[in-house]
Parts: sequence; C-alpha cells; structure tokens
Amino acid sequence: MNDQQALTLYIAAFVSELVQTGIRDVVVSPGSRSTPIAMVMAEHPDLRLHIHVDERSAAFFALGISKASKKPTVLLCTSGTAAANYFPAITEAKISRVPLVVLTADRPHELRDVGAPQTIDQIHLYGNHVKWFVEMAPPANSDEMIRYARTVCARAVATSKQAPAGPVHLNFPLREPLIPLLDNEQLFQLKERNEGYVKIQQPTISLKNDEFELYAELLNSTSKGIIVCGQIDDQKFSNHVVALAEKLQFPILADPLSQLRSGDHRGDMIIDTYGTFLRNDEAKKKLQPEMIIRFGAMPISKVVNLFLKENLTTRQVVVDGGVGWRDPAMLSTEMVYCDESIFCEELVKRVAPAVDSHYSNQWKKLNKATKEILTVVNETEDLSEGKLFYQLEELLPEDATVFVGNSMPIRDLDSFFHFNQKRIHVMANRGANGIDGTISTALGAASLKQPFYLILGDLTFFHDMNGLVAAKLEQLNITILLINNNGGGIFSFLPQASHPNHFEQLFGTPLGLDYSKAVDMYGGSFISITNWEDFSSTILQDRQNVGLRVIEIVTNREKNVKEHHNLWNFVSQEINALLEGEY
Amino acid sequence: MNDQQALTLYIAAFVSELVQTGIRDVVVSPGSRSTPIAMVMAEHPDLRLHIHVDERSAAFFALGISKASKKPTVLLCTSGTAAANYFPAITEAKISRVPLVVLTADRPHELRDVGAPQTIDQIHLYGNHVKWFVEMAPPANSDEMIRYARTVCARAVATSKQAPAGPVHLNFPLREPLIPLLDNEQLFQLKERNEGYVKIQQPTISLKNDEFELYAELLNSTSKGIIVCGQIDDQKFSNHVVALAEKLQFPILADPLSQLRSGDHRGDMIIDTYGTFLRNDEAKKKLQPEMIIRFGAMPISKVVNLFLKENLTTRQVVVDGGVGWRDPAMLSTEMVYCDESIFCEELVKRVAPAVDSHYSNQWKKLNKATKEILTVVNETEDLSEGKLFYQLEELLPEDATVFVGNSMPIRDLDSFFHFNQKRIHVMANRGANGIDGTISTALGAASLKQPFYLILGDLTFFHDMNGLVAAKLEQLNITILLINNNGGGIFSFLPQASHPNHFEQLFGTPLGLDYSKAVDMYGGSFISITNWEDFSSTILQDRQNVGLRVIEIVTNREKNVKEHHNLWNFVSQEINALLEGEY
Repeated sequence: MNDQQALTLYIAAFVSELVQTGIRDVVVSPGSRSTPIAMVMAEHPDLRLHIHVDERSAAFFALGISKASKKPTVLLCTSGTAAANYFPAITEAKISRVPLVVLTADRPHELRDVGAPQTIDQIHLYGNHVKWFVEMAPPANSDEMIRYARTVCARAVATSKQAPAGPVHLNFPLREPLIPLLDNEQLFQLKERNEGYVKIQQPTISLKNDEFELYAELLNSTSKGIIVCGQIDDQKFSNHVVALAEKLQFPILADPLSQLRSGDHRGDMIIDTYGTFLRNDEAKKKLQPEMIIRFGAMPISKVVNLFLKENLTTRQVVVDGGVGWRDPAMLSTEMVYCDESIFCEELVKRVAPAVDSHYSNQWKKLNKATKEILTVVNETEDLSEGKLFYQLEELLPEDATVFVGNSMPIRDLDSFFHFNQKRIHVMANRGANGIDGTISTALGAASLKQPFYLILGDLTFFHDMNGLVAAKLEQLNITILLINNNGGGIFSFLPQASHPNHFEQLFGTPLGLDYSKAVDMYGGSFISITNWEDFSSTILQDRQNVGLRVIEIVTNREKNVKEHHNLWNFVSQEINALLEGEY
Repeated sequence: MNDQQALTLYIAAFVSELVQTGIRDVVVSPGSRSTPIAMVMAEHPDLRLHIHVDERSAAFFALGISKASKKPTVLLCTSGTAAANYFPAITEAKISRVPLVVLTADRPHELRDVGAPQTIDQIHLYGNHVKWFVEMAPPANSDEMIRYARTVCARAVATSKQAPAGPVHLNFPLREPLIPLLDNEQLFQLKERNEGYVKIQQPTISLKNDEFELYAELLNSTSKGIIVCGQIDDQKFSNHVVALAEKLQFPILADPLSQLRSGDHRGDMIIDTYGTFLRNDEAKKKLQPEMIIRFGAMPISKVVNLFLKENLTTRQVVVDGGVGWRDPAMLSTEMVYCDESIFCEELVKRVAPAVDSHYSNQWKKLNKATKEILTVVNETEDLSEGKLFYQLEELLPEDATVFVGNSMPIRDLDSFFHFNQKRIHVMANRGANGIDGTISTALGAASLKQPFYLILGDLTFFHDMNGLVAAKLEQLNITILLINNNGGGIFSFLPQASHPNHFEQLFGTPLGLDYSKAVDMYGGSFISITNWEDFSSTILQDRQNVGLRVIEIVTNREKNVKEHHNLWNFVSQEINALLEGEY
C-alpha cells in the first residue's frame, strides 16, 4: 500500500467521521497543501462546500453559519499566512462561544523551520484562543491510525460544542503527493463501526436539588428584584426566563441580543427602554433593586451597566451555563454555573409566586411612559440614525433576522428597538465587538436564515467589503442597511471629540468612498435614500427582491451626536416631570 | 499628580524614545483604547502618521514601509480583534526578517477575562511569531517608570533590527480616562538623558580570521563551483558577491529577489536563465558542480531547487547572517553564520584568483544561448503572461521598483526578467509566500520609492483590495499590472489539474469580478489591454501619470499552461541541439 492510499484512507476516515458527527457545512479556501482534504470533502455527498478565497472572510462566514445553525462549521485552508487570516474570527468565536472546527494543512515535519515556502509555525498557532489544539499524526493506514483519525475528529467536534462552545484547531502535516485516490467507490465505507466511531455524551451543567432549593429561597427573600439578560441565543430560554420573571414579579431588562425583545413569549415583564430612562437620577433612585439575577453576556447598554455598578451592594446572582466569568465590574455575589434554561425551569418549580408588586409596577410604568415619550423620535424630519432603528419594528417582516454592526448600530438598536411579537431574531458579533468580518458573518448566517437584514456603519462595511463576494458566488439573499456617515461615528460620543486637534485624522477617519461601485462589482443593487418616505417604501418594496441589496442612508456624525444628546435631555426632562407628578 | 498626567508623561516618554531611536513612520488604526498613544504620536513633529482602518492592510502597509526603508515601522491599534488582524503580516515579517514594532492597546488587568467589551487575551498574542513580547507596566510617572518605558522602547526597536530582523510586540494596558494632557509644551522634553536613553550596540555576525582562511582554502579547492543567491536585499552585497564570483570564477545563479539581476554591478558572472536551461537533463549533467555557496532565502525556482537536490553529494556552504536554517532539502555541508557581505568581502581578500575555467564558461554559454532562444517569447501574438514579464526590462524606467505577487507572477519574473543595468529593484513577500496583503505591502513601499510597479494576479488583487484605500488617502503613486485570468492560475500547473472533478470549484475559483469598479471607487484609473501595441504604449504613457493606475491584462489559465509547456519543450529541444552540436 503506497503513501497515496494511506493519505486517501486516513483523510476519508476523518471526513466520514465529520459527517457522522453531524457536520454539514465546510468553508474551504483554495490552496495547494490542503488539496487532499478539500478533494475528499468535495466527494462527500452530505457536505456543503462554501469556497472563499479570502480566509479572513471565510472564517467569519463559517462563524455566521455556526451562529445560525448552532452547530460547528468546519474551516479548511492551506499552510502559511492563510491560517493566520483566520485569527480574528477565531478570537471572536472563542469569546462569543461559537463552535468552529478549524483544519489547517501544514508542511510535514522535515519541511518546518528550514526556509521551505509557505511555511509558518502552526503549532498552537492560535494560542489559547482555541479550546483544543491537535497536531495530527501524518497520514497512515493502519487500523489503529484510522481509529485515531476518527477519534480525534469526534473529540474535536464534541469539544467545540461542549459549553462553553468555541473553536478547536487541528493541524494536518501532509507530504507530497497531495492527490488522493478518488476512484474508490468505497471511499467513505469504514471497516469498523460504520455508524460513527464514538458517541461522546456531553455533561449537563446543572445544580443539585438542594442547591436549587437554596436559590429559590434566596430569590423569594425580596420582592424588589430584577432580571438582566444580555446576549443569549437559545429559544427555550425565552419562555423559561419569562415564566420565572412572572412568578417572581421581577422585571426583565432585556438586551436586544437576549432574543427577548421579539418572540412568541409574553412581553409583560420585558423592560426594553431602560437605556433611556435609567439616564435619569430620580428614576434610578426609585428603582434600586435588592436582588439582581443576570443571564448571558454583559448587556450592551452603558446606562444599565452603570446602574448595576451604582448598586454595588445589591445581591447579584450571575448564572452562566458556560462556566465563565462575565462580571467586569466585580459585582456578582453568587456566580452560579448552571445551564440558564435549566436554572429558570427548576426555579420556577420552586419559588413561591409573588403578588403584583409596587416595585415591578414602577419599572413597567416607566418603561411604558418612556416608550410614549420616545414616539417623538418618529417626528425627526431629516434622516437620523435613531429613527432608522425606531422604524425597524414596523418595517421588518415577521421572522426576519437582523444582524447589527458594532459601535453605534448595536447601541441604537438597544435604544430604539422595542418589544414586539414578530419573532425578529437579532444577531451581532459581541464576543470581542470588532468591526471586522461583519458582512461575512451576516452572509454565513443568511445562507441559512431568511429574510435577512444587516445594519452597519460605513467603516464596518468597508472593513469586510471582500466578504460581499460570497453573496455573488453563493447567490445569497440579504438586505444591507448601510448607515453612511463617512467615518467612525462612535468617536464623536467619546471624550476625544472635545479635542479637535487630530480628531478627524485619528478618529473621524472619513474614507469618502462611493460604495455603490463596490456593490455593483459584486452584482448587487444599491439605492441611496434621502428621505423617510423613500426609506419606508424602499424597505417594503425590497421584500420582493432577491440577491444582494444595499440601501444606503447618508447621515452626519456631528448632527447625530446632537440629536442623541437632545433626545436624551428631552426624555429625561419628561421623565422628571412624570416622576414629580407621580410622587 | 493625577492619573491623566501619569498616562501622558509615560506615553510621551515612550514616544520620544521611539523618535530618538530613529523611528519615523507609524501606521495607526482608529480605536478607542489606543487613544492616548495615537494622540501623543500625532503631536510629535517628527513622526509621519499613516491612518488605516483595516488593520490587516495597515500591518502589511507597515511591512512595506519597513522593507523599503530598511528600518522598523511602528504599528498601533486598539484592543480586541483589531490586534488579531495584524497576524498575517506579522508572520510574514518574522520569516522574511523585516523589522516591525507592534503596539497594541489593551484593557487593564481588572478588565481581562471578565466579559468586558472588545477584550481578548493579548498576552503573547502572536506566539513565537514575534521576536520579543512585553506586557508593559500600567502607566506611572515615577522617574523609574519613565526610565522603564524608555528602556523597553529602545530594546524593542533594537531587537526588531537585530539580525535576523523581525517583529516585536508591546502590549499596553490602559485605564480610563484615555485622554492625554496635550497642552504641555514640554511634552517631549525629557528630564533625564534628553538625547536618547540607551544606545544599543548591535553585534556583528562574523567569523574569526582563521575561520575565513579555512573557507578560502575550501573554496579554492575546486574550479567547478557555483554561487546561488536567493532573496537578499542589501545593496552592498551585490558588489561584494560579484567580486567574489569573479575572483573564484564561480557563476552566480541569481534569483530575481537577490537584486543581482539589475544594478550597477558587472553582469558577466550572473546566470539568470537557469530556470529554463536546467530543465534539460543533458545540461544538468554537464553543469554538475563540486562546490555550492548559497546566500539568502531559498531560490524561487523549482528547477534550481531540484538541481541542488540532484547534487546532494556536492559540498554546499550556506552563509546566513540571520543565524537561521534555510535548507529544506538538508543539503548543506557547512552552515556558516556570518553577515553575507562581510563573508564575501573577507573571502575576496583571501582566495586565490581562478583562471577562466571551462566549467564557468559552460554556464555562461548556456545562459547566453538560452537568452537567444527565449527571444521567441517576443513573437507571441496573443497576450501572454510570459511575454509580459519578458518585456519589463525594456519598458520599465531606470530605478523603478517592481513588487511582484506570489504564485505565478514571481515565477514568471524569475523565468523572463534578465540581467540589466537599469537598477530595477525587485520586491515580493517571500517569507511565507502568501497572496494576502500584497497591495498594502506594495503601497507602503511605494510611499518611499518611486517609480513603483506592482504586478499581481487577480486573486491576489482581490485578497487585499481594501489596501487600495491607502493610495487614495495618502495620494500615493503606483502602477498596478493586474494579470486577470479569473482565478488561481498556479493550480493549473499542479497535479490536481488532471482531476477535472471539482477542479474549478476548489482550485480555479473564478470570481468573475469587474475590478475597474473597485479601482474607480478608490479614485484610480483603469485600462484593460487587449494587444501588445497597447500594452507597450500604455506602460510608456503611464510614466507621465500620477496616483493609482491599474492596467489589466486579461489572460486565459488553460492557454497559459499550454504556452509555458510549449515554450519549455521548445527551449529544451533547442538546447539539446546546441549541446549535441557542441560536443
């Protein structure tokens, strides 16, 4: 048996096992060293291959598929800098707990660190930004090495899924000749255990009964409690947390990424304008909690994070099914490692029902009043970033997915997108909050979820423009709302904005690009909106269209800051008036 | 003294010291956490700030400046995935021995691994792909900590320059408030040692006199010797190695990146068509060497590398001033750690002059004959990739710099660009040979060197299209020859080309993009060439123009392979005829 046969059978066993573990999507970047894996994968009838030349975009595309499918996606690239281009998406996947199985081809041992072309040190290439790294054995065709390839594959997929989910990295040293023998009809017929080599039973992250009892007691110790939900993407969780909130009469401060702002669940307990009314000192004083239960990532809202900090002495229970430490302000008094849905489900069974409390009613009343005050946003005549997000609830179709860019868009969504039952799914890259890879992540998700909207600023759009090619090559359907304020809008909200020296050079960074040209190159349609009537009608008409559609909304950074500040001042005054009238 | 003052003085001391070490160029990507460093740098009158939004391109742009200036360039970015985007350029810099000083801003210790936004683990972020990593102390304003900031800065710059040059990484934990106090006219006035804190005297990598004597004896032991020069970018070296070659009568197989194919030095000993005539078995037999001296990186030519392998038993002296191990085929019999210029200079003094030898004349004759045979390339009527490179010598102006993309362009340059005295400088990213970052590296170099030409294929162009924005923002002058064969041309030369199943999907990867649109977006001009007359006249006329100019040459991948194969067959037959006639 020659080397080519060993190569073929070893790789085929690995690829078979990938499919057996449930992998369906593989994002491949072209390259020479990875040839045998790519060719064997292309032969497998159950794998969908996505081919992307730019490995940075490829990795974010895979991230998007994993986020949408909630399953690991496989990445494959050749040796050298190709693999280094995966790094940004891998760091994001690690922190945002998204499963990825990263396969890199490598030179064999004798060609490493000796000046061979396209060779970098790929051992532990991603450091501790992956959950597991394996330097694979060189291909061999003994029964034992086939078992090895299959076992490592099964472990890699399981490890990537195990909470906290994340990326794993397998590095394959491959010798020439790199061409597998594909004229074998039995390629994916395995000699042993044809049904999958080893089933890996994941643990349930939960508590013991008596521990649940203690937490039930704790939560019942006060009626002045709130629940804070940051990013968490689990459909079961919504109903469970709402049931717990109702039973305890604890309002839920629901981050847009908690998936609690839109869905089939009841909305009575959902507080969605806290980012507005918690700017008011009077309101904050009246709403001081005695108990905080926090789920998911840290909330996006700086306002709510400040409120939590100001209530430093309040008992704060942080529930984390990913066994991490999501508590930058060191506020937790209890760090509870338990699956979030299980926690809510078990506590609902155990807590005593609370009566309608004055405290929770205050939250609800303020939330309702704030929503009424915020209708003023709709009166803005000029194109404004706030109003754009305010109108989404009305304009988006049911069951749409909205992917939101970092910096300003996610913050505006937080402020202006309120509870509805359209089952709108909200996504973002909020692990490391980069502006990179946003288009690719969205397109990866859009390959599975429709209708799909991406809302992002011009610098974020620019950063991942290469990602647009996936829309062309895979004929994906996506509507991109491009908020073009010609530069980095968020910096105008930061202290450096009051230092005009170098501000535009270092922070404003206007690029002055006409993005319609890039969109045209990728075969998309491009419309630039100049008024609100066009905005609504364009969004509505757009529902009939397919492919890549970019709708540009040109705004002004300076004006945007003023609008936001004026709005917060106005709302705060109104809330003051309301609170004075009330008490 | 409050925190803001400590921050300001600590950072200002660091930035002062950067300037004192000779740093002039800083490539900054906008971000919040890096604000104090960026603002202080912008205040310094002796620093040139280049602002680039896409950190991947920014890092390659810095790489290009360093390659052109032969000095370290500084990179600055904010925390999170921004820093991960530097990774591809850093791996390239490490292997190609280019000095870079990478500064990343980071969250302070208390905000790490606790779910704070835009935070990834940046400790040893680039693993062993940097020469040195320092987690900087948090800013402090004691005399001692100012000394510390300055000493680390001096060490970082010196370490990046020390052979083998390469990237270093300093990670700055920074707390809010992030705004430095810039209303201080004495900002860069240092209390102590205002002239630079510590001068670091680098060692000379050289041999002892008696060791040089031994090598002189060794080299004089045969008249059948050759010198092989791969990538090496040192103007002094050219004259030294040519002098040694002449004295020993050892022909120099000169890779295009050795800078020996064009320059003021004499060309008698330069062999530049070895990649063509060493395909002929008869020629290889006659040219078997008894001594090989090798300088620089491994040559690009697969043909010459095969020739070296076939002469496994020949004594091979590898001289490496970077103290590495550039010998993938394990051919060296002597690994000599000595600066390459010093080695040649010292050996020229010591070796006995050789008489004109039959052996070296055979090399020269075959080289000359091959050049004559290759004039056939000029007869190609259709646009062809080979002829394009063949014509460069004639069409490029004196003192031009040519940056060449990886995959096919660098190989074609190797085959078709022959010795001349136009002092054309040839550059490429041949550390890890990636197709990424090519445009940005070229533009970084073009900011210092003019006139400047970049020749690359369409996938390489696509991969770093974002890099083009630098040409617009910095008003750089560059002529890009875009060889557009709609996909990955090199794969058609590899074994997978004979497996048509999945070939286009996995390897050909046609993107079908009209790049004129992207070029237009970046304010460049775009001409697509359809015949040779237009090609010549366009290149010549283009010399009068400024800004970004892209000249597209559309070719066909399948035809290109056939043309190359036909040409090699034709040349080999001609050489056979020549050798038969001769002996």
